[in-house]
Amino acid sequence: MGKFVTIKELARELGLSHSTVSRALKNHPKISPNTREKVQELASARGYIHNPHAQNMGTSDFISLIVPDITVYFYGKIFETLQNELAASDYTLLLFNTQESETQEREAIDRCIQLRVAGVLAAISMQTEKADHFEKLLHYEIPLVFFDRVLNFLPVPKVIADDYRASYQATQHLIDQGRRHIAHITASIHLNNSNNRLYGYMDALKENGLKVNEELIYYYEMQPDSIEHFLDRALQKHPNLDGVTVFNDYVANAVVNALLKMGKKIPEEISVFGFSDEPIASRMSPQLSSVEQVAPRMASLALQKLLAIVKEEQALQSEKIVIHQELVIRETS
Amino acid sequence: MGKFVTIKELARELGLSHSTVSRALKNHPKISPNTREKVQELASARGYIHNPHAQNMGTSDFISLIVPDITVYFYGKIFETLQNELAASDYTLLLFNTQESETQEREAIDRCIQLRVAGVLAAISMQTEKADHFEKLLHYEIPLVFFDRVLNFLPVPKVIADDYRASYQATQHLIDQGRRHIAHITASIHLNNSNNRLYGYMDALKENGLKVNEELIYYYEMQPDSIEHFLDRALQKHPNLDGVTVFNDYVANAVVNALLKMGKKIPEEISVFGFSDEPIASRMSPQLSSVEQVAPRMASLALQKLLAIVKEEQALQSEKIVIHQELVIRETS
Repeated sequence: MGKFVTIKELARELGLSHSTVSRALKNHPKISPNTREKVQELASARGYIHNPHAQNMGTSDFISLIVPDITVYFYGKIFETLQNELAASDYTLLLFNTQESETQEREAIDRCIQLRVAGVLAAISMQTEKADHFEKLLHYEIPLVFFDRVLNFLPVPKVIADDYRASYQATQHLIDQGRRHIAHITASIHLNNSNNRLYGYMDALKENGLKVNEELIYYYEMQPDSIEHFLDRALQKHPNLDGVTVFNDYVANAVVNALLKMGKKIPEEISVFGFSDEPIASRMSPQLSSVEQVAPRMASLALQKLLAIVKEEQALQSEKIVIHQELVIRETS
Repeated sequence: MGKFVTIKELARELGLSHSTVSRALKNHPKISPNTREKVQELASARGYIHNPHAQNMGTSDFISLIVPDITVYFYGKIFETLQNELAASDYTLLLFNTQESETQEREAIDRCIQLRVAGVLAAISMQTEKADHFEKLLHYEIPLVFFDRVLNFLPVPKVIADDYRASYQATQHLIDQGRRHIAHITASIHLNNSNNRLYGYMDALKENGLKVNEELIYYYEMQPDSIEHFLDRALQKHPNLDGVTVFNDYVANAVVNALLKMGKKIPEEISVFGFSDEPIASRMSPQLSSVEQVAPRMASLALQKLLAIVKEEQALQSEKIVIHQELVIRETS
């Protein structure tokens, strides 16, 4: 497991003071050659990255939250939970909304460094492919915990839902109800969560001896109109289409409306299954079957982990915390 | 118009230095009796309130946003707009979510004072009746601008939508389509915006020679189930009910679903009209007629006003900035 080591951690491991380690790393003349060598050897072994700005920088009492879209209920709920949990502490929660843009994500991180925040909780944007801006945080010794949408290769804790399993179970639920020709709508190929939902769907089909048909998998690109075109095409080629599982409830809502408009009966002719139990799921008519909303639990776990690292009770290292989700069966399945 | 005057403003008006005014107010012996009298007279005339903590407090580069519920799209959009507009500045936006609680609103304001924010933008909670916590901000010389949900009697700028006019026009639109028995669903009696919507509805009825029937006005208390009960009762007593205008789109969505469940045709038998054009309005089936969403414009105007006060280009005083809204006619009317 990867890990970004800090001067504090090197000092603790060697039983030396912070300033001794710091000076040893800078070849300060007051440090004996013996100590210097010991420190530099361990620093090198642990992958210590020297950053002249990080030292003596101090930290503020801010915890940052970086989300891709605050107008989505899930992220609003994440903010609400975190602010409630931090209310009794000295920390103030600082929100950055990236609007699904990697550029804005970079700006948010620069602002976090500038403000010397104590730690960062982040869900990446749909555009995010590189990790150097998140690495920059670590170089400044600012702890980072990912949640929901994560960069797997970065050696930091990640709190995620078991999307693979939930999607597998939702698909299995449709199969158990006699559905045999099930389509799936997924999101950006860069996102861990929608990818895991796609794999859960495919594996459930395979393990039930059903064929995975690429024509029935649709990569949604945030254009609501495209849903109707996809369903139209799918139904023309596969008139026996009898189920659709969708990576989120807003798009599942568009699927239900498009199918009703085409004169299809839900769930009699086609079942629809959403994800994340957003408020729209129970406001729709018929009400949408979905996967449990986990924002409050996810926020709590991510914050606990971050605070443990900020308080140096735990080291910052690669780690996965996985949340199980239940199905919420309503009227569309 | 009321106004909270600061030492800076007194100093400017008198052509004296900040420290002279400050010392004159404290009866400092180095200040001549003549000057002291002049300063104290003006301070009294302008309603200066002495606050020992405000002086030399300095301010941070934070602008605070206080909203009642960040999971509501409207407030998410307010945050998004403000953060975009502040991106090029040195200010950082700090969000506080009160969850419709006056207690949490008070805690947010205490945190703003503690952090010495440069200014506050606020929409009050549904519970808020008193203003002393907002007055406290002013005593600390932290500028405040209200938007959307405001306390009318506090002498600060308020940026609001012309809810009275929009609701009047929505009701007139239903009357123009031949509707004669129109119900209205409103929210807390403490909120300026839903009250204005209620009065717009009542006046439109009256000016069209229609009777205002109290049995057809419902004060919604955030319990979705109660909508069905209200409509059930209303339809039993008034089987000719042919229109419902609603203070927000989420509740209008519940109205549409309840009416469809009762077998009513929309809009053939009953028209429904919402407010604020939230995303759910165009996601519903049938799509909801509503009043234009003004979050981006409202956020911009409120921020402009606040920054002008923070930069001392304008004084903090009672003032109303009113935004006109268009109707968005869709399938439910």
